Formats: sequence, C-alpha cells, structure tokens
Amino acid sequence: MSSQIGNKIKVQIFGQSHSKAIGVVIDGLPAGIRLDMEKINSFMQKRAPGKNDYSTKRKETDNPQILSGVFDGTTVGAPLCAIIENTDARPADYSKIKDMPRPGHADFSAFAKFGEYHDIRGGGFFSGRMTAPLCFAGAVCMQLLEEKGITVGAHIFSIGNEKDLPFDSVDIDANDLKNISQKPFAVIDDSAGERMKIDIKNVADEGDSLGGVIECAIVGISAGVGEPMFDGIENNLSKAVFGIPAIKGIEFGAGFASTFMKGSQNNDEFYFDKKSIKTKTNNNGGILGGISTGMPIVFRVAVKPTPSIGKEQNTISFSKKCDTKLVITGRHDPCIVPRAVPCIEAVAAIVIADYLA
Amino acid sequence: MSSQIGNKIKVQIFGQSHSKAIGVVIDGLPAGIRLDMEKINSFMQKRAPGKNDYSTKRKETDNPQILSGVFDGTTVGAPLCAIIENTDARPADYSKIKDMPRPGHADFSAFAKFGEYHDIRGGGFFSGRMTAPLCFAGAVCMQLLEEKGITVGAHIFSIGNEKDLPFDSVDIDANDLKNISQKPFAVIDDSAGERMKIDIKNVADEGDSLGGVIECAIVGISAGVGEPMFDGIENNLSKAVFGIPAIKGIEFGAGFASTFMKGSQNNDEFYFDKKSIKTKTNNNGGILGGISTGMPIVFRVAVKPTPSIGKEQNTISFSKKCDTKLVITGRHDPCIVPRAVPCIEAVAAIVIADYLA
Amino acid sequence: MSSQIGNKIKVQIFGQSHSKAIGVVIDGLPAGIRLDMEKINSFMQKRAPGKNDYSTKRKETDNPQILSGVFDGTTVGAPLCAIIENTDARPADYSKIKDMPRPGHADFSAFAKFGEYHDIRGGGFFSGRMTAPLCFAGAVCMQLLEEKGITVGAHIFSIGNEKDLPFDSVDIDANDLKNISQKPFAVIDDSAGERMKIDIKNVADEGDSLGGVIECAIVGISAGVGEPMFDGIENNLSKAVFGIPAIKGIEFGAGFASTFMKGSQNNDEFYFDKKSIKTKTNNNGGILGGISTGMPIVFRVAVKPTPSIGKEQNTISFSKKCDTKLVITGRHDPCIVPRAVPCIEAVAAIVIADYLA
Amino acid sequence: MSSQIGNKIKVQIFGQSHSKAIGVVIDGLPAGIRLDMEKINSFMQKRAPGKNDYSTKRKETDNPQILSGVFDGTTVGAPLCAIIENTDARPADYSKIKDMPRPGHADFSAFAKFGEYHDIRGGGFFSGRMTAPLCFAGAVCMQLLEEKGITVGAHIFSIGNEKDLPFDSVDIDANDLKNISQKPFAVIDDSAGERMKIDIKNVADEGDSLGGVIECAIVGISAGVGEPMFDGIENNLSKAVFGIPAIKGIEFGAGFASTFMKGSQNNDEFYFDKKSIKTKTNNNGGILGGISTGMPIVFRVAVKPTPSIGKEQNTISFSKKCDTKLVITGRHDPCIVPRAVPCIEAVAAIVIADYLA
Repeated sequence: MSSQIGNKIKVQIFGQSHSKAIGVVIDGLPAGIRLDMEKINSFMQKRAPGKNDYSTKRKETDNPQILSGVFDGTTVGAPLCAIIENTDARPADYSKIKDMPRPGHADFSAFAKFGEYHDIRGGGFFSGRMTAPLCFAGAVCMQLLEEKGITVGAHIFSIGNEKDLPFDSVDIDANDLKNISQKPFAVIDDSAGERMKIDIKNVADEGDSLGGVIECAIVGISAGVGEPMFDGIENNLSKAVFGIPAIKGIEFGAGFASTFMKGSQNNDEFYFDKKSIKTKTNNNGGILGGISTGMPIVFRVAVKPTPSIGKEQNTISFSKKCDTKLVITGRHDPCIVPRAVPCIEAVAAIVIADYLA
Repeated sequence: MSSQIGNKIKVQIFGQSHSKAIGVVIDGLPAGIRLDMEKINSFMQKRAPGKNDYSTKRKETDNPQILSGVFDGTTVGAPLCAIIENTDARPADYSKIKDMPRPGHADFSAFAKFGEYHDIRGGGFFSGRMTAPLCFAGAVCMQLLEEKGITVGAHIFSIGNEKDLPFDSVDIDANDLKNISQKPFAVIDDSAGERMKIDIKNVADEGDSLGGVIECAIVGISAGVGEPMFDGIENNLSKAVFGIPAIKGIEFGAGFASTFMKGSQNNDEFYFDKKSIKTKTNNNGGILGGISTGMPIVFRVAVKPTPSIGKEQNTISFSKKCDTKLVITGRHDPCIVPRAVPCIEAVAAIVIADYLA
Repeated sequence: MSSQIGNKIKVQIFGQSHSKAIGVVIDGLPAGIRLDMEKINSFMQKRAPGKNDYSTKRKETDNPQILSGVFDGTTVGAPLCAIIENTDARPADYSKIKDMPRPGHADFSAFAKFGEYHDIRGGGFFSGRMTAPLCFAGAVCMQLLEEKGITVGAHIFSIGNEKDLPFDSVDIDANDLKNISQKPFAVIDDSAGERMKIDIKNVADEGDSLGGVIECAIVGISAGVGEPMFDGIENNLSKAVFGIPAIKGIEFGAGFASTFMKGSQNNDEFYFDKKSIKTKTNNNGGILGGISTGMPIVFRVAVKPTPSIGKEQNTISFSKKCDTKLVITGRHDPCIVPRAVPCIEAVAAIVIADYLA
Repeated sequence: MSSQIGNKIKVQIFGQSHSKAIGVVIDGLPAGIRLDMEKINSFMQKRAPGKNDYSTKRKETDNPQILSGVFDGTTVGAPLCAIIENTDARPADYSKIKDMPRPGHADFSAFAKFGEYHDIRGGGFFSGRMTAPLCFAGAVCMQLLEEKGITVGAHIFSIGNEKDLPFDSVDIDANDLKNISQKPFAVIDDSAGERMKIDIKNVADEGDSLGGVIECAIVGISAGVGEPMFDGIENNLSKAVFGIPAIKGIEFGAGFASTFMKGSQNNDEFYFDKKSIKTKTNNNGGILGGISTGMPIVFRVAVKPTPSIGKEQNTISFSKKCDTKLVITGRHDPCIVPRAVPCIEAVAAIVIADYLA
C-alpha cells in the first residue's frame, strides 16, 4: 500500500524529491466535478516553497499539470493523474549524506529497508516535497466537500512555546475557518503570529529549528459519517496524517487533556438547539465511536522541529564504521509548521471525501 | 472495512456486547505456529472484567474457543476463528437508553448512522467488550513476534493527575517490559499505582470516572521494518489503536513534547554501540519515515474517562424531542485504563506481526 | 486476502472440512435487513450433502447459527457471523493421504505451500464443504438484491456430453429463473435432467466421476452497475467463482463461441423497446466495459469431474520417494455439478450486492 | 479500486484514449531492480499500433517516460510512474458517437454509469489504448520474474475458425515459449498464421472483424505459489485478464474441455521424474486449489471480434429517442488478437510477480 490511501477515492502519490516529476493519481472521483483550477493553484501556493523567510529557499512553481481524468475542465470518472515537475532539483554530491545518516531524518531507516538503492537525493520519497501532490489531491477533494457544504480549515496552534488562540470547537463556523486558513500566516491571533515569526527567525539564525502544533477543524459534516472500529474517522484521519513527514502525534477534541478530566467534565451533554441536536461542549471533537456527531470535527497534530539544521551534529559513517560529525548544508525550512497547515487540511479533505463518495 | 485490520494478516472482529458470542477471524497466519493456550488465556485475563474494584462487575470468563485454523494445537494456514460466548448479558429494558443517548457514548452517532436497528444493548458493537477478541488476536500475534525475538509491553503512564515513571525509551529491555506488563496493576512505580487506585476508588464513590495515558514499547525489532508514507508504523499503529473505544490521542517518542524542543535537542544522534548503530536519545520513538530504526518503538495513547457514570447528566429524548435528565445504572468501569493496557499491547502486536508476515 | 472477498460488503470464510465448525463473517451489511431464515435454510439445503444418489453420503444438517450482527431477526449494521458445526466429520487415519497426494486434489500444492501442518483431513480448507458458509452469505445477499428487484438463478447447462437447453439470454425473466433454480435437479429440460442422472449413476458404478457446465443469469439489474478495468463485473465475478473448488473456466455471454463470429454477428445492436433501451442479442452477456447494460447478465462456468474417484490411480509416496498406486475410499460426489449450482448463485449474489451496497 | 490491481505490487493505470498522456504507477516494487529499457521498449512495440495490416492505423510511438521510482536505471523502492504521451489523438467531432452508442462498445454502459461527462473520445478510459501502460507494467514485472527463473509467453491459439497448434502443457520450456511469443505474428505453426492473416485481410475488406483465442503459459514457477479460495492464481489471473477490453472468457488447463472427461481421464497423476514430482498430464493447468503445482501454468482467453466495424449497424439515438443506423468511421483493428498477446503476457507477469514480491 505504502503510498496510497482511501477506500472509494484512492489517492496514490509518486515521486522523489529529485525525480523528473512528482504526482498523484486519484481513482474513484465521480464524473462531472468542475475543477476550479484557480482555487486549486492558490491552495497549492500555501504549501509551495521559497516564499518567505521561514521556508526553504528551493524555488518550485508547483504548477500541477493534469494528464488524465479531466475533459473540458470537468472530471470524467476515469482516474485523474496530475504531475508537478521538479525544476529546482540541484545536481549535487550525495556521497556525503549517503555515508552519514542525518539525525532525525529517514536516511538510516530507509537504507535499512531499501539498501543502497534508496534514492537519498533530497530525502527521496521521504521528502516533504511529496506533500505537493497530496495538496493537489486535497484541493480536489475540498471541491467535492464544498458541494456538500463541508469546510476544512487549519491554523498554527503553536510554534515552540508560542501559542495561538484555540478554535472554538463548539461554535467555529465555515467563514471563520476559511478566513483563518487563508491568511499568509495562518493564526487566529496575529500578534501571536508575529511572535512566532520572530522565534523562527531567531532559531534560524542559530542554525536550529522549531516545531509546533497544527489544529484542524471540519465543519458542516452531519451526524452519522464514519464507520465503527477500525474504519472510524479517527482511525483514517490518523493513518493519513502520519503520511506527512515530521508528524509525531495526533489528538481529537480534548485529546490528552481529557485524561485530566473526570467523566462528568469530559462528557459532552446533548441538548436541542431548536430542532437540531447538539452538544454543549465538544471534548470528543465531533466524533463518537468513530462516527461524526454533527459537531465540528477538531483535531491537533504535533509537528516535530525540522531535522535538517545547520548546527554540527554527531552521527556515524557507514563506510568508516565509526562515529563522526556532520554539518548539513543546503536549503531547508527552519520551521515546517506554516507550510504543513495546508497539508493537514489536504489529508483531512481526502479522508472525509472518501467517506462521502 | 470497518471491523477489520491488516494487510497480510487480516484480523476481522465480530460481535456485540449482548450477541450470542463475539469473536475474531485471523486470516493469513503462517502454518506451523504452536499456540500456547495457557499464555493466550492468561493474557486475556488481564483484560477480562469483574476481577477487582476498578472494573465492571459484569462476570465473563472470556475463554476463547477455537473453531478453525488450528489442528493438534498448531496453526494449519487456514483462517483461525475463535469465539467467546457472552454469558453474563443480562436481559434488560433498553427502551430508556434507546430514547436518551448517553453523553460521551456512541449511542447518538450510531443511531445517526444505522438508524433504529442499531443494537444498543450494552453499547452493541461499540462496546469495550469487542476488545476481548482483539486481545485474543493480539495474544496469537505476540507468539509470532516472540519467535522473532520481539516483545511488546505497556504500562499505565498516568491516571488523572497521578503519574507513573516513564519507560526508559533508550534502554528498556524485554525482561523489564514483561515484568511490568504482567503486574496485576501495570505500573513501574507501585507506590504511584497505589495512589492511582485510591483516586479511582474515590471517583467511583462520587459516581464519576477517570481517564489516563498508556505507554507502550516494542523492543527487539530490527531497523528497516515498515513502509513509507501511508503504510508506516505510525500510520498503522494509530489506525489500529483508535479501534479501541475511548482512545482520543496517540503520540510517538517525544510526541507533543517534541514541539517544545529545538531540532538540535529533538534530533536523535547516531553512534556506534560496538558494531550496532544506535541513537543516544529516542525522541522519535524508534520510527523515522514510518520505518523502524532498531531503537525501541515507544508510543502513548490518551484514554478518556469512562463515559458511563452514575451521576445525573443532561441529554435529550428522541421521542419527546426535548432536553431531559439521564441517570445511567448498571455495571461499568470507573476507570478503563488498567483493562485497556492489554488491548494496546494486542493492537501493537497485531500491527507489527502484519509487517513481518 | 485468501479467504475473503468484497469491497463494501466483505465476506470472510473460515473453517476446514473437519474443524469444529465452519462459518462466515459478513462485514458491511446495511442495518435493518429482515432475514428470512426459512429462505436461507431452504437455499442452503440445495447445497447440503447426503440428499440423493449423486451426492456424497456425508450427512450434515448444515443449519447455520447466527452469532452476531442480527437482533430480533434484523441486521444491526455490525458484522454478521454465522457458523455451521461439523457433525459428521469421522475420525480417521489420514496418514495414507498425507503420504500419497490424490490426483486432481489440492493435497500436493497445499503441502508445497503450508508444509506438513496443512490439515489434510477431508481436504481441510480446500474442501467443497467451505461452500456451505459461502451459500449462507449468498442467501443473505440474495435478500438484499430481492429488495432491489434483482434475481439470481442458475441451472445445470451440461453434465458430461448431456446438455440442457440454454437460458434465453435476451428474455429470461425472474420467475422463470426462480422456477428453474428451485427444482431439485436444476435443469430447464427435465428429460435431459433424467439422462444426466443416469449418466451420473453409471459413472458412479464405475468408480469414476463427471463434470459439467453451470449457467447463471442475473436479471433486474439496471444499466450502469460495475466499474471499469479491474473492478468490472466480469473481473469480480470470475475472481469469486474460482473460489469454488473444481471450477476451471468462466465465460460471459457468447464467451468462447464469440471467437467464431464476426463483429457484425457478435455485436449486440441497441433498439428502443418502448422507452427502454435494449439489445436484440445478448452476446456480451449483459456486460460491456465491465459495466451492466441492463440486459440479463449471463455466464457459464466449467466444473471439472470430481477428482475423488474409486478407481485405482497412480501417484507418488512422499515418504518412500517412489511412484505408487492409490485407491481412495470414503464418501464423495460422483458429480459435484448439481450441488455447485447454489454455490454459483451465491457468489453471483455476493458480487452484485457488493456493487450496490 | 477500478483501475488498480495487486496486493503487494500495486499497479494503477490512468489515462484516456485522447487525454494528454496515459500511464501507470507501480507501487511496491523492490529496490535494486536494474531495468532493461531496451527489453521493455521492445515488449511494448509488440502491442504498439500502426505496424501492419491487421492493426489500427493510429500511429503512436508508445515510448514510456519514467517520471519516478528509478534512479540511474535502477528501482529505488519508491512508486514507479511511467507515462506515454498521446500524440496521434485527432481532434474530431464526437457529437455523433455521443448520441449513438456503438454496438459491442462500452459507450452505452459508460453513459449509464458516468452520465454525460464520460469522455467518449476514442472510447475514453475503456479504450484498448489503456493496455499500453499495462504492458509497461508487465514488462517490468517480467524482469522481476526472470530473476527468479520464471518465463511468461503467449501465442495466438485461434483466430475465427483457424487454429494454431496448442502449447504442450506438460513439456513446454522457457526457450520455446520465448521464441514463439517473440515472433511478429505469435503462432507455433506459421502456416496457420498465414491463413489467419488472410482471414483477417478478408474480413477487413468486408468492413467486418474477427476474434480469437490466446493461450498463455508460465513456466519455471515452483509448487506452492498462490493462496487458497479467493486469492488463488485462477482468481487473480482472471480478475486481471478481464481488465483487458474484449476478453469474454478464460479457462485453465483443459478448462471447458474437462467437462467432457471423466475424473479418471482428467485427473493428473503424480510421478517422480528423477527427484522432482511431476504430473503425466496437465489438465489442471498447473494449478490445484488455487496454488501452483510446479507444472506449467496454462490458460486460454477468448477475445471477441473487434466491435468497431465499418459495416452499417442498428443502434439508437439518445437525443431523438428512436432507433437509427450507425456507420463507424475512423481507425480500428479488424482483429485485436495479435496485439492482445503481449497484454495477456503482461497481466500474467503482473499477477505472478505480485505473489512472489
């Protein structure tokens, strides 16, 4: 399975950081979906590199070309393939990193699995660059969801010790969500955002990096979506989310904080809001038994600090069979969190669209 | 898919809290595995109800009967089916809970999905009772792993505000793991365990409940196990873990805490320990790029406080279409965390065995 | 996957010829289907052994017990498990057949795959007995199809050189189909049926066996059901059909006979029959591009002569590493075709119900 | 699933007859396979159009470009994507065929499924052109098989009433197989081949078409490959084979002819050929219980006559809601059988490689 996800809408990612192109095949899309390419491109630009100080300097236009599955701007029911060319993949000498696995990267585990043939250039298939076609698929799925009145949006919940305001998990509405997620730096509280940028700048100057937390909400989803046990929303969202490099945790609703509450505090009591049934709190994040309750689905993911840092680190040399020092040069993000926001939105859209296909 | 997990070893769960029996089919097991039924039964007793003060009073012997797939105590390569009879399912009047969804339970979302035909008795298919066949499958998979020198073990990391000591994520060994996980109350620090039991007792007396965190480790797994992107160890462990009722979060290695570290702190530096390559720290929990590094795999899950509590709660009446009060009577666990420990071990064993099949 | 089939409705078979029980888990059934157990049992009796001269003498009541997924006679949305006890599995000395693989049976290939632990008793997992739970699942799926106005029925097309009349692939209707398939000996032309029975009797007296062809039709299915390429009706029906032991071929519509026609003869021309679009001929068997055309779906399968015969045969001895002679004793069908009719109907119903779930 | 096949090696096809490109993603290939591009291209030329009298006049070079998964000519373990540009897709007026479904084509059923948005141009996703990427995937899998000593080859068994000699299902060896399958017109008996060509020429002159039978063999596969019940070799080969347009039947070994034999004639008796166990006949086509016996795997498929013919045919007009006449112009094959030979070889290679991955 590895690079594929979904039951009814299957999303298959391909490519490596330095392959000729990267891309995605989306199989199972309904026919007749008019694709708004402007929206798709604008969504992809939220993730695209080279835009600002806290992003890698690698320049990629990230313009997807659709090879199949669409005619006259509309899906035809056949598998949609879109590719993105790798234009700024610099020829380089990879012998050093082939010999010295970078701490916190997949270099070592990939060699253990694939042997010497693993394409280490730029991280190969393990590169964050693979999230570009993922974002394309997410943007397509968002259009499917939009037709059903469902909106997905995420924001930077925290970077290092600096926190944004949380989503109002009971009352967040589609417009708020869109407004927040479309900001160039997706935070609710812009002053917190400014402090985060400063922290990123400082840590970049040290040759170091920061991580953070992203919070995502899905609103407009009615009760009864999902499956019990192993095919619930939590199961499938988490399986998808860990496909994004650097994610190390996920929690739904109150998540880990629910473990400090008593049942009487954590239980979300039902009430009638006019004719519709809602809950007063949303500690379960809109999901009970793997199935949506009709309340906003809310989850948070932990993004570890970018492993590529300028500081000298200890590692080993495969060839010399000894410990050694490594200094990573090249282009990398001091903090991947801002660019990971659309990636989280993308996987959320893919997973929810799959249930509703 | 819903109640099935696995690629090569497929585990299919069936049953409801009050159906005639519950059970599991395990398809894809190799032939020739001699099953140690004593070990399997003793593992299942860790989860079985009715044993102590912090468990439901429902009495079930939870003795699995193997219907197929085994001959003369050894797997034959055909699908293994094991069933567990429901013996203490009390006939009861379910009209009340059919009308008034219990806060924090799947009652409401299940009705939204399945309509009036959902079997609400004891929570039906959403009952924690469904983890009994899961533990059976886990116990079988543990025997597969044992042959490969891999050990899975978990402990109660915290209950409410009371914390156990954490696993030593760099140095934990198989024997420590077995010793801890086999304690009647699986904690490293027994004095913390005693305080937890008191807290559970107190909250039970209030008609309330507690949640907590379970930490699980897998040792003896060599580097290179797993798949990139969507079929990594984190993806599949999390998909499986959320199949256990009441789990609301999962994190690997340092997890959410990694977001407070800089890259230089969080990166696990490689070194030679004699001839084997290890990392000095294990903030990535033994997984990089979805693939094992050879260090212990360590993850923690958040277990919410049991939603079934004795205290009066607000909810709605479907029939009267108005808000109402609900008092839940019957048997339930004031804290599910201790009995969830073997469930977490079981899913961990199932997921890892599937990679190695 | 091995013993499982289906995408949305997953059917998992388990058991061996001589295991304690055999059975099936059906995951993905909608809630609210009222099961007509009388119909299900009567369908299962079409396959059950021990009824007449052309069937094995093994007596099994083949009464399925439902363990889960049904409450008050109605599906609840949770996985349905049904088991059938093996009551007439005779303890016997299997050392002979363990040493001497029976020609035409899976004994040799199963040992090659599973080694000495393969349960050879009665053919183990490769026994025709595994079609009993398959028929149960088929009977359940037939009830789903009935609600949608779809009828599945099959007949004995030929046994050896003796042929029944073929289905009228253009005009066959649901009632005809039901009438034919419910006959104790399912043929259109009863006089042909009598000749078949005589042929079976004769060959049985010789200690030999016969095969034949079964033709199956599915009527009432509207145009547009199926998927292109690898998930078409032909793909999935054939994958399912070869799960029944002794099937060695399948053809749709004119099948192999279409290779003797020109395009102008084989093409099914469209016309308006009042407001509905039909074809004048049905050489494509109701399927074009893997997708239903609205015409009856018609296919035929080849059933090889039962490999278990009384005549002495040549084979080898594993232990002596030499050629030897084998005489198979015990109970077996001189012709499996009549009892395979409901099995073909069952897999057809399972496959079509899966598309419509 | 639709356009995807495989468990461990997943092959995902995409494209339409007139989309910008067509292609394939192969996920799950091992790292370190050195691709012989010359062999791959030469295999693809066996299927490529425009080469001779019995092929469509559409000119396509069918040169695959590899976008990912390969570095320095060797697989890296990441998904391999290859695309083939559509260069000779002629802009045309498709309003006629949009209104008048072609008999024997998927036009009608595709509209029933996908509605007006189905891309009808050149048959869209249902075009035989989709077998070009399938052949690429097959050629890659053949290289995997070659390393394991397994050879796949097919020949034209018959076209219309004209028959080639059959494979010797007991003694066919890898070299014979290669020699036959590499002929420009793949027959054993070249004089039969000449007669077939004449028949094709004649029928083409009439504006009509022919079908035929292709026979395929797989040699060098040891006993014990495959899975029981639904994941056997017959199940998976047939599922794959029906993904090729125009296939209407498949049979293994003696297939339908086995129904005219008695068990004593059809059973393949085992014997020792020096130290290896073989069967004297191979009526079961190298497969028993879904699992290989070590004898050559042999199967035949029925290819219907090309539905696109020059002769006037009856059909309906969607817009006018009446019966009408249709004359199909444009480029098409009077007999698709010769070009289908490598397609059958390709799916056979894909299915067998998947078992051995």
